[in-house]
Amino acid sequence: MDMPGEDIIRDGDLILLYYDRRRKWLVKASQRDFHTHKGIVDLGSSIGKMYGDHVESSLGYLFYLLKPTIYDFIMGPERPTQIIYPKDIGLILLKLDVAPGKSILEVGTGSGALTMALANLVRPNGHVYSYEVRPEFASIALKKLTNAGLNPYVTIRVGDAAEVIQEGEFDAAVIDIGEPWKVIPKLREVLKPSMPLASFSPTFNQVERTVKTLERFGFIDVSTIETLLRELKVEEGATRPFSTMIGHTGYVTFARRSL
Amino acid sequence: MDMPGEDIIRDGDLILLYYDRRRKWLVKASQRDFHTHKGIVDLGSSIGKMYGDHVESSLGYLFYLLKPTIYDFIMGPERPTQIIYPKDIGLILLKLDVAPGKSILEVGTGSGALTMALANLVRPNGHVYSYEVRPEFASIALKKLTNAGLNPYVTIRVGDAAEVIQEGEFDAAVIDIGEPWKVIPKLREVLKPSMPLASFSPTFNQVERTVKTLERFGFIDVSTIETLLRELKVEEGATRPFSTMIGHTGYVTFARRSL
Amino acid sequence: MDMPGEDIIRDGDLILLYYDRRRKWLVKASQRDFHTHKGIVDLGSSIGKMYGDHVESSLGYLFYLLKPTIYDFIMGPERPTQIIYPKDIGLILLKLDVAPGKSILEVGTGSGALTMALANLVRPNGHVYSYEVRPEFASIALKKLTNAGLNPYVTIRVGDAAEVIQEGEFDAAVIDIGEPWKVIPKLREVLKPSMPLASFSPTFNQVERTVKTLERFGFIDVSTIETLLRELKVEEGATRPFSTMIGHTGYVTFARRSL
Amino acid sequence: MDMPGEDIIRDGDLILLYYDRRRKWLVKASQRDFHTHKGIVDLGSSIGKMYGDHVESSLGYLFYLLKPTIYDFIMGPERPTQIIYPKDIGLILLKLDVAPGKSILEVGTGSGALTMALANLVRPNGHVYSYEVRPEFASIALKKLTNAGLNPYVTIRVGDAAEVIQEGEFDAAVIDIGEPWKVIPKLREVLKPSMPLASFSPTFNQVERTVKTLERFGFIDVSTIETLLRELKVEEGATRPFSTMIGHTGYVTFARRSL
Repeated sequence: MDMPGEDIIRDGDLILLYYDRRRKWLVKASQRDFHTHKGIVDLGSSIGKMYGDHVESSLGYLFYLLKPTIYDFIMGPERPTQIIYPKDIGLILLKLDVAPGKSILEVGTGSGALTMALANLVRPNGHVYSYEVRPEFASIALKKLTNAGLNPYVTIRVGDAAEVIQEGEFDAAVIDIGEPWKVIPKLREVLKPSMPLASFSPTFNQVERTVKTLERFGFIDVSTIETLLRELKVEEGATRPFSTMIGHTGYVTFARRSL
Repeated sequence: MDMPGEDIIRDGDLILLYYDRRRKWLVKASQRDFHTHKGIVDLGSSIGKMYGDHVESSLGYLFYLLKPTIYDFIMGPERPTQIIYPKDIGLILLKLDVAPGKSILEVGTGSGALTMALANLVRPNGHVYSYEVRPEFASIALKKLTNAGLNPYVTIRVGDAAEVIQEGEFDAAVIDIGEPWKVIPKLREVLKPSMPLASFSPTFNQVERTVKTLERFGFIDVSTIETLLRELKVEEGATRPFSTMIGHTGYVTFARRSL
Repeated sequence: MDMPGEDIIRDGDLILLYYDRRRKWLVKASQRDFHTHKGIVDLGSSIGKMYGDHVESSLGYLFYLLKPTIYDFIMGPERPTQIIYPKDIGLILLKLDVAPGKSILEVGTGSGALTMALANLVRPNGHVYSYEVRPEFASIALKKLTNAGLNPYVTIRVGDAAEVIQEGEFDAAVIDIGEPWKVIPKLREVLKPSMPLASFSPTFNQVERTVKTLERFGFIDVSTIETLLRELKVEEGATRPFSTMIGHTGYVTFARRSL
Repeated sequence: MDMPGEDIIRDGDLILLYYDRRRKWLVKASQRDFHTHKGIVDLGSSIGKMYGDHVESSLGYLFYLLKPTIYDFIMGPERPTQIIYPKDIGLILLKLDVAPGKSILEVGTGSGALTMALANLVRPNGHVYSYEVRPEFASIALKKLTNAGLNPYVTIRVGDAAEVIQEGEFDAAVIDIGEPWKVIPKLREVLKPSMPLASFSPTFNQVERTVKTLERFGFIDVSTIETLLRELKVEEGATRPFSTMIGHTGYVTFARRSL
């Protein structure tokens, strides 16, 4: 996401326009007005400024011009309800040992949130192969990857991963489809021995069947977790957790392929 | 962590010796015996085998020979109590947009767990600058980084970050010291505008003072979270969360530098 | 809440009108129409039916006529935002050993939710003395207690508990005010030796000061907890926690008076 | 638990001997020595003192003499692993509207923890009917109830509740057995219309089958929850949650009988 000398905002650059923690937008620097409840922001006036600087809306409120991070792209617009959240993505990246140069298989591109995070880390010489049966999802994900400049590191294929996977020799695999057990036999073939796999599912029942199938196909070190994220409302002398939180996104099952 | 053609275990290679989810060890392939409650494992017999394969102990139990991942190094031996856990590391990596080529500042090397995760992702052309006031911690961390082959991507300096930081121009910064507020003014200088920062603290009181200081020094998009990780005990027809879990590690405060 | 032979609904009786988990109302059996999104319910038609039976709305939907429980009264209408929730009330009742015949002191009547739960359990020969500085809150609470038939077991006093408490000899005390530390010295006097106390506060700062004050005034067995409640979405083959939950209500500090 | 004029400890009275939050014991006031890591306590010296007072051990440490509450009896000795915890008991008491005069059915006496809490609240004119198939559990529970002076309010029957229940006309029912679905048809018969039921189960599979059976037998307002309890480590300037917590006890399903 970070390129040397790119600290000055140029025409066409992406900006995370920040008002406060609830109000931030991914926008493009260009000669147009952006309407908000806190007044109109002249996006053209951001051109030539540095990232981190701010502009004033027509009503006199400050809007900061931040350089979008991978997190901002993940949490950005066009987010379907069933996204894998950053709290889970972070742990998946670590457990799958995603790193520069790796070849990663993703079954179920979905919103492309995880695809972006994977692509961002396998650069410059690794690659993500992502399968998606719904062409419209593949298309949205491709658009988001292109927007984030990550498309060179990803190949999205429309189709059933269990049928079409040919590449072989993956360093890690991640599954985010409704019936993970259907692709596990195939993953056993294409994942390198010893390498890790992660599978994301919202329900207990899916987890139970996934774990059973993994064990049947010789996967080891099988474990399933859920993470809960709470945000603190920090005010001097009145600090407490926020009263609302997300109660559930899904469970993540991890495993490693034995020889 | 992954190098092409390295799938055959050679003399001196690191192995994650896996018996079950509670019993795994980071060992070196060499002509020696490794004693466990499930019998003696002849580590020399692993040489020439593929990662993912297994050996049998003197009592006939199977031990798998896995290739260590960054997660295994983080959760490995010589782990002091106050480690930043993977659940938090993953989210920090994502929020800080750690990626190949980045220049990252770490204040408080501590156990080196986070240092390893950072170094693993800035490769091959990025770098991690890590400060630690306690020489013995710096020394342990350096040993672990060397063990994991990540030392070329890290510079550890013994000293107070608030005093000695000279590099400037960091893409991200992470703080893991008892009094984060002391280095925040300095971080304001050396972090590039718009770039993200994360600070890890176990107590509410630290969080309150950190947030107040960040706001005073012009940081924006300040938020504090905690993550809880629960593990499921998956058994067909009897699936439930495990009865024990870690109740608290710490809070992570995120912010971004305004111009 | 339960009186023998009261299973037939009579004119004027309270009913929990139940459509589904999200739509239930506390209403009075009387000759009037009750308008809902699922049609009009003729409340008069409930008279003479048994609790547990149902009526049909004008649009043909079933509405069940349930006998209100203490839980329904607590979760009923006129609920200000800062209620003590059942998850906390239940534990408070148990830790304070609230039971028939006890004399309980409540500092901060608030919404009256906890007052109702206390009154319900000290019957028939115990009593709750509740203090509230805001007359309008005292008034709402009294109305709710009367509605639930529990007013004979409660005395609500408008005023500052620290000033006016005279009763002495309480078996237990519960505090739900913004500055619990202000009444702790007084509670030390009026609570019987060995007897338990509970204090509810939303912020960790309040907790810290409360605990410190309790220890200073010779209270022992001091502990502070928070409870989190998650609801499961149970569907055959697709069971999971609901995606929303309440992230925080407050902390409860328990202690016992030493001699 | 509380009797007027009982504030002086007499020979044979029960005491909660309190050293600190982790070290408390239910003991009987009598002429004997009680050995602890903090020295020997002469229990005879407690006779004639008031509850809330303290004695000194042979090593000079203070031990407080507290009057046992229902909570202390529940968390007392002879606690099998699979206890229903206070966090769940409290909510069950509230949702079942347990109160003086009620007739409560318990299927699965188990450790007797919940039985004690129920008996404590139906006094003086209500009753708890509790079924347990394992005679040794029934026997332990009876001993604990007698110890707490609550046996007059409980009838424990050894046998299968589905077979032998005859009483009929219960105001509430609670189930704590491995196969709750087996007694649900019977409970439909013996529970009064409109009245509430609670069922405790550790696994999600049990929950799924319980909910399905409840719905099939005409129960309404069916909901399933789990509660998590975290304890705070309150230290001035260093307050945080404790690092250990119980990760899971069980799920509680609530429902109400329609006519």
